[in-house]
Amino acid sequence: MTDQELMGRALALSRHARQSAPPNPWVGAVIVADGVVVGEGCTQPLGGPHAEVVALRAAGDLARGATMFVTLEPCAHHGRTPPCVDAIVAAGVTRVVASILDPDPRVGGRGFAALKDAGVQVEVGMESDRTVQELIAYLTQRRTGRPWVRAKVAMTLDAKVADSQGGSQWITSTEARDRGHLLRAQSQAIVVGSKTMEADHPLLTARPGGVMATLQPQRWVFAHRELSYCTPGVQVTSESPQAFLDRMGGAGVLGVLIEGGPTLLTSFVDSDLVDELFVYLAPMVFGDDGAKAAFRLPAGRLLVDPLRLNLIEAQKVGTDIELRLWSNKATTLASLFATELDHAPEAVSEW
Amino acid sequence: MTDQELMGRALALSRHARQSAPPNPWVGAVIVADGVVVGEGCTQPLGGPHAEVVALRAAGDLARGATMFVTLEPCAHHGRTPPCVDAIVAAGVTRVVASILDPDPRVGGRGFAALKDAGVQVEVGMESDRTVQELIAYLTQRRTGRPWVRAKVAMTLDAKVADSQGGSQWITSTEARDRGHLLRAQSQAIVVGSKTMEADHPLLTARPGGVMATLQPQRWVFAHRELSYCTPGVQVTSESPQAFLDRMGGAGVLGVLIEGGPTLLTSFVDSDLVDELFVYLAPMVFGDDGAKAAFRLPAGRLLVDPLRLNLIEAQKVGTDIELRLWSNKATTLASLFATELDHAPEAVSEW
Repeated sequence: MTDQELMGRALALSRHARQSAPPNPWVGAVIVADGVVVGEGCTQPLGGPHAEVVALRAAGDLARGATMFVTLEPCAHHGRTPPCVDAIVAAGVTRVVASILDPDPRVGGRGFAALKDAGVQVEVGMESDRTVQELIAYLTQRRTGRPWVRAKVAMTLDAKVADSQGGSQWITSTEARDRGHLLRAQSQAIVVGSKTMEADHPLLTARPGGVMATLQPQRWVFAHRELSYCTPGVQVTSESPQAFLDRMGGAGVLGVLIEGGPTLLTSFVDSDLVDELFVYLAPMVFGDDGAKAAFRLPAGRLLVDPLRLNLIEAQKVGTDIELRLWSNKATTLASLFATELDHAPEAVSEW
Repeated sequence: MTDQELMGRALALSRHARQSAPPNPWVGAVIVADGVVVGEGCTQPLGGPHAEVVALRAAGDLARGATMFVTLEPCAHHGRTPPCVDAIVAAGVTRVVASILDPDPRVGGRGFAALKDAGVQVEVGMESDRTVQELIAYLTQRRTGRPWVRAKVAMTLDAKVADSQGGSQWITSTEARDRGHLLRAQSQAIVVGSKTMEADHPLLTARPGGVMATLQPQRWVFAHRELSYCTPGVQVTSESPQAFLDRMGGAGVLGVLIEGGPTLLTSFVDSDLVDELFVYLAPMVFGDDGAKAAFRLPAGRLLVDPLRLNLIEAQKVGTDIELRLWSNKATTLASLFATELDHAPEAVSEW
């Protein structure tokens, strides 16, 4: 395996911890000695060992003189667990290849410095674009103090979320709806608007593959008036989107998912507060002005200045299409994260 | 290479003749002797040799005792060129692997029968789904008498083809617009509505990659009134969509492309006359009820009975997404074509 393939393996491992690691970053590590993988692992749930330590335990004595590939800079501070740097040095690892720097103010280059001080060879930057994509929620929260904001919309080819009689269950296929549960499980907070709460009585629990996720996100409904119905356990807020996100980020929430409906989605989109939009597009048409539009901006835009997004990925999901789109702001920020690898970054202002 | 890979190679070759072969089918052929490709080719323009003969000429004496992989049943009749079957037998090919039967009434199994009569081993059906997808326009015209009807729409994420001031040039990227020119070059007739003609003054020529295609499609505008503008060389018709398609099919047109606008597209879609819809989706939003909708059916549909299509493919094209969708009728017909391989098919009625 090439170095790139080994980092790809570390990235694949990290995805196993995507749902369980937050508020910690989900990291993967692979240890290689004489071209053979002797240990690997990913971040364990809060309080458990980090990926580096899992991989070191698996490698045992074989870690001596070996190389570690790890997606994020190892920590050098005492948190809930001892510093990973100490374990790496103690195990006799002689080379660490890390994809990106950890912008957490307690790390921010100190991990790399400590490794170098101990005589370990350090390389940074391999597959950094892919790692930034993977860890974007963590990186955004640590650098800006605000969570990564995803929004989800399920609509027809003519961009309707309900027919003229309000029929909306279900526009998309079971596979697309299951992807929606995965998005919930990857978020630490979910938000709906008051009309969605009253019309659909959603549970808002994360049930990917039909199974309740171990870690359930906080559930919130935005309401500026008395609700005629609210699902038990769902919390009500009348904050502004900006104030809500600031509070969530301050509380360590890495990712927030906006589930709709159109009014709430529009208020977040129009304030440029949505970083990543998932569109589940069902190949059907209502062809009806009376059907409910997915996007209605307070001030309509013209072709000279539309609300413009960047298409990251398009894929078939069941009979539907999943589109993953990023805002311009999110795209710019990700580029920044992927290049600032060799020094402690400062907080991003004006976010 | 496996037999499947060799048929895949024949299919790839056939695509080179996609634009130049009609009204003939675009076919690919590969000749293999002792595991080595000794000759290959694709259909030449009208009056030139078929794929089988091109491959045989390349193979020369090496065809003796060899196997031919060919995407469509070889012809057994005298048309503009002598029968391919005679050439195959004369060259000493001992095994022919064909993907699908040729439904042309002059062939329809006679090619396979003639080969078997001459002692050639014949196998039919390899990669038949892929070949049916590739040759669907040809197969549809030969089996139903009607051309394969494609429609193209370029729209925003909120399914608008123009902003509230009529701005529509250009919603999609240059790459997506170039795909539009490729669709034109693959069609034998292009159709627009009167409003599109008057508003956009389109040339309607096929210029993929910025180069005028050698074979240009017929250009038509549907108009039930006097036009204030018509591009020179564009023909006017006031027929119904059904009558127009019947006439085109009768004249040997394999594929028709409906280019819009929404009124014309709707009239074809609503009559279930569109087989394949290409949607070029730009990642932008107008969010404005006053912007022009891509789909407005005379009678709006509800979720219990929407206009439903089948997603065949989704891919990024420049900064946009290209969606390829088939009607239910087209999907059913393609399944039929892919299974009726060992007998002369009858004409499909009620199409």
